[in-house]
Amino acid sequence: MSLTHTDQNGHAHMVDVSAKTDSARVARASGRVRAAPATLALICDNGLKKGDVLAVARIAAIQAAKKCWELIPLCHQIPLSGVTVEFELDHDNGTIHIQAQCKTTAPTGVEMEALTAVSVAGLTLYDMCKAVDRGMSIDTVRLETKSGGAGGDWHRGAQA
Amino acid sequence: MSLTHTDQNGHAHMVDVSAKTDSARVARASGRVRAAPATLALICDNGLKKGDVLAVARIAAIQAAKKCWELIPLCHQIPLSGVTVEFELDHDNGTIHIQAQCKTTAPTGVEMEALTAVSVAGLTLYDMCKAVDRGMSIDTVRLETKSGGAGGDWHRGAQA
Amino acid sequence: MSLTHTDQNGHAHMVDVSAKTDSARVARASGRVRAAPATLALICDNGLKKGDVLAVARIAAIQAAKKCWELIPLCHQIPLSGVTVEFELDHDNGTIHIQAQCKTTAPTGVEMEALTAVSVAGLTLYDMCKAVDRGMSIDTVRLETKSGGAGGDWHRGAQA
Amino acid sequence: MSLTHTDQNGHAHMVDVSAKTDSARVARASGRVRAAPATLALICDNGLKKGDVLAVARIAAIQAAKKCWELIPLCHQIPLSGVTVEFELDHDNGTIHIQAQCKTTAPTGVEMEALTAVSVAGLTLYDMCKAVDRGMSIDTVRLETKSGGAGGDWHRGAQA
Amino acid sequence: MSLTHTDQNGHAHMVDVSAKTDSARVARASGRVRAAPATLALICDNGLKKGDVLAVARIAAIQAAKKCWELIPLCHQIPLSGVTVEFELDHDNGTIHIQAQCKTTAPTGVEMEALTAVSVAGLTLYDMCKAVDRGMSIDTVRLETKSGGAGGDWHRGAQA
Amino acid sequence: MSLTHTDQNGHAHMVDVSAKTDSARVARASGRVRAAPATLALICDNGLKKGDVLAVARIAAIQAAKKCWELIPLCHQIPLSGVTVEFELDHDNGTIHIQAQCKTTAPTGVEMEALTAVSVAGLTLYDMCKAVDRGMSIDTVRLETKSGGAGGDWHRGAQA
Repeated sequence: MSLTHTDQNGHAHMVDVSAKTDSARVARASGRVRAAPATLALICDNGLKKGDVLAVARIAAIQAAKKCWELIPLCHQIPLSGVTVEFELDHDNGTIHIQAQCKTTAPTGVEMEALTAVSVAGLTLYDMCKAVDRGMSIDTVRLETKSGGAGGDWHRGAQA
Repeated sequence: MSLTHTDQNGHAHMVDVSAKTDSARVARASGRVRAAPATLALICDNGLKKGDVLAVARIAAIQAAKKCWELIPLCHQIPLSGVTVEFELDHDNGTIHIQAQCKTTAPTGVEMEALTAVSVAGLTLYDMCKAVDRGMSIDTVRLETKSGGAGGDWHRGAQA
Repeated sequence: MSLTHTDQNGHAHMVDVSAKTDSARVARASGRVRAAPATLALICDNGLKKGDVLAVARIAAIQAAKKCWELIPLCHQIPLSGVTVEFELDHDNGTIHIQAQCKTTAPTGVEMEALTAVSVAGLTLYDMCKAVDRGMSIDTVRLETKSGGAGGDWHRGAQA
Repeated sequence: MSLTHTDQNGHAHMVDVSAKTDSARVARASGRVRAAPATLALICDNGLKKGDVLAVARIAAIQAAKKCWELIPLCHQIPLSGVTVEFELDHDNGTIHIQAQCKTTAPTGVEMEALTAVSVAGLTLYDMCKAVDRGMSIDTVRLETKSGGAGGDWHRGAQA
Repeated sequence: MSLTHTDQNGHAHMVDVSAKTDSARVARASGRVRAAPATLALICDNGLKKGDVLAVARIAAIQAAKKCWELIPLCHQIPLSGVTVEFELDHDNGTIHIQAQCKTTAPTGVEMEALTAVSVAGLTLYDMCKAVDRGMSIDTVRLETKSGGAGGDWHRGAQA
Repeated sequence: MSLTHTDQNGHAHMVDVSAKTDSARVARASGRVRAAPATLALICDNGLKKGDVLAVARIAAIQAAKKCWELIPLCHQIPLSGVTVEFELDHDNGTIHIQAQCKTTAPTGVEMEALTAVSVAGLTLYDMCKAVDRGMSIDTVRLETKSGGAGGDWHRGAQA
């Protein structure tokens, strides 16, 4: 087993995928923002009056997915064919759950695009709430499922 | 208490900081990547042979700090006067600790820049190791300290 | 009278503002999107159910203001200290009025940032509605007022 | 009839085009900049001495077409296979006519790319002439024709 | 013989490649940085202690290859399927040799991507060493070979 | 003597300039493109008919100067207060001379911005002429002079 993104000397390269053919691919990632109850209440209130808070985070996430190749140095430029981002407020546990799904038809997968969308959604929520709650944290950003491509499908629960 | 990044109608805006003066500011953020022991061993081996893995993540983090205003929709464009990014491999707990520190002299702070650097460092490590370990997660991305500005200093431990 | 952005040979350059000092500046621009009544009704409905349509256009506008220097080749890189974007639906005349205001403290003005914000808000509205109304147009994108700087204030009505 | 870029809850998403196949597509958009006669004369003079003014606007427009996906939050990343931008000075009516045509082979169309090119050409002309004519406006930015794709062809005159 | 990137009036356009089909393409470019012996020694020392200098230049080069379409106004947006960047220190001649290879499957070639990678690698080396050696120069940035596409193969030695 | 852009472990960082004050700075860089006589003649002809070739390269150079911080990983974000780019065709020696000058008022210099402008001007000329002359090379990209800042002035001739 060895790292794919470095050569035998340990030097970084963009992995050659020229021999791979395009296939339909989907990846879904998730994460959560932990916040104080009062912060969650403010986000909820903003939503009740048709506010922009979750919309801003959703747009930031979609745009970040499209810019993944620019942020992550060795990522390929993948044309996304669809992105969705969902939020769920969990007042009991003081968390905002984030889910992002990305699709493409390409020679390589969109896991990084989905993970980037989740991370930037979390960062954007932090930004908009930081004046009232600097102690927030972004947690458990991880891949949930991926499908398509020669590597086959992967589901978090099924890995054991 | 109300959200600063939305107006009385809940609409997003870039907060007006034109009345604030420049001051020296520092922010430090941290996070961790949880990985399988074999993944940590590969990163460690890469380092032993002078490989690029941690260097790639460090560069990605520094560049992301500079692009924070582009990723986070309501962030101001802050000229950074210094960025450092450090990694620490903790084999016992299967984690890579990430720390980023950003400095500026500006009317508003650099918390988001430091948090963005940590997140993108984590995403870059995920990218380079994902072929061997899709189950990795990025955890506990949070602000550690900030200083400077009218808001005063903030330290994680001191908030209680 | 001659063009400031080209030299005596007609060649483009970024105008030298190194002798100018920072001053507080504000610019406000406006424009309108003309659409079919059914399109306006859909945007209105989306708003009633707390939808994202106007929020997406607002965020796109704010981000475009920050990227103005990248889009307009001879623009200076101006750090914005505040941006607001407002929409008003005028069902009688079948138009969406767009207003953007940008602020900075800089050696040169933010007219282009405000005009870029309005244009990109209009383009984003077109994008989201084009499947139902390809005939929409973006009209009367223009500066309303600017203040600050050696050039003094300017108001549209006062120019005659 | 409903908006395609928001889901049943009104939330924004990047529309899933993964089931669509690539096809050759063309879109042509137009717009005009209204300026004072003296401003048009200066642009004309610049052209007579082989100046850069229209060239700068043309280049800005081509580059903006390539960046459309970055400016318009829900746009797909479309690889353009050709872009042309034309200007026509109409001294009698005090306007500069702008036309842009974009081509691609992709699962979705290039209307937004053509409209963005026209808008940024107009903004760039405004920028270069603003010191002599702040009252300029950008008008009637609209789609003229599109062809290709499942949606079929569309021509402005034919919509009635 | 005429320039392909301008029309019969000399106006710039993005060349229409819509009639061309995708094919596998490779381009390799090279260049060199001339530096004082002491500068080369510092780079070498940095490498001996597993330093980041060459890694930073390599990452900058790979990222620049992906952004070529954004830097070079008339370049098409080409999705790269692989990039490698190599350095060789030549202490006798006081030069660092840079080689970059880019691959794609696209309707047009990747010569500009490879040349951009080499140039940005050189600029990045200059940046990191400029405090000790402002006299460095970047030389002989040129295409070595290209293959694929209707234009056929090209090798530097074979052109005479 | 040691490298400023890496710490004692050889790790890259963005150099901390927070203790430095703003000062007026200027840097001038140069380079040349070597081309076949027929290529130079085509560029010259394009100029005679008021063509865009040199204008495109000039605009690309100015925009690249503004994006230097994005291309060169450890560069600071410097707001440029003026950029000029000049070309001179030397038919006898088969070269196009490129000169770029950048100005700023900032805590650190603009050498990299000027060098990046020259490099991207050269790459853009290569791009527009490559269909007729793949053998072109970009040579002798180097700093000519810099002034301002604690480091003092530097002139190429004066370094011996």
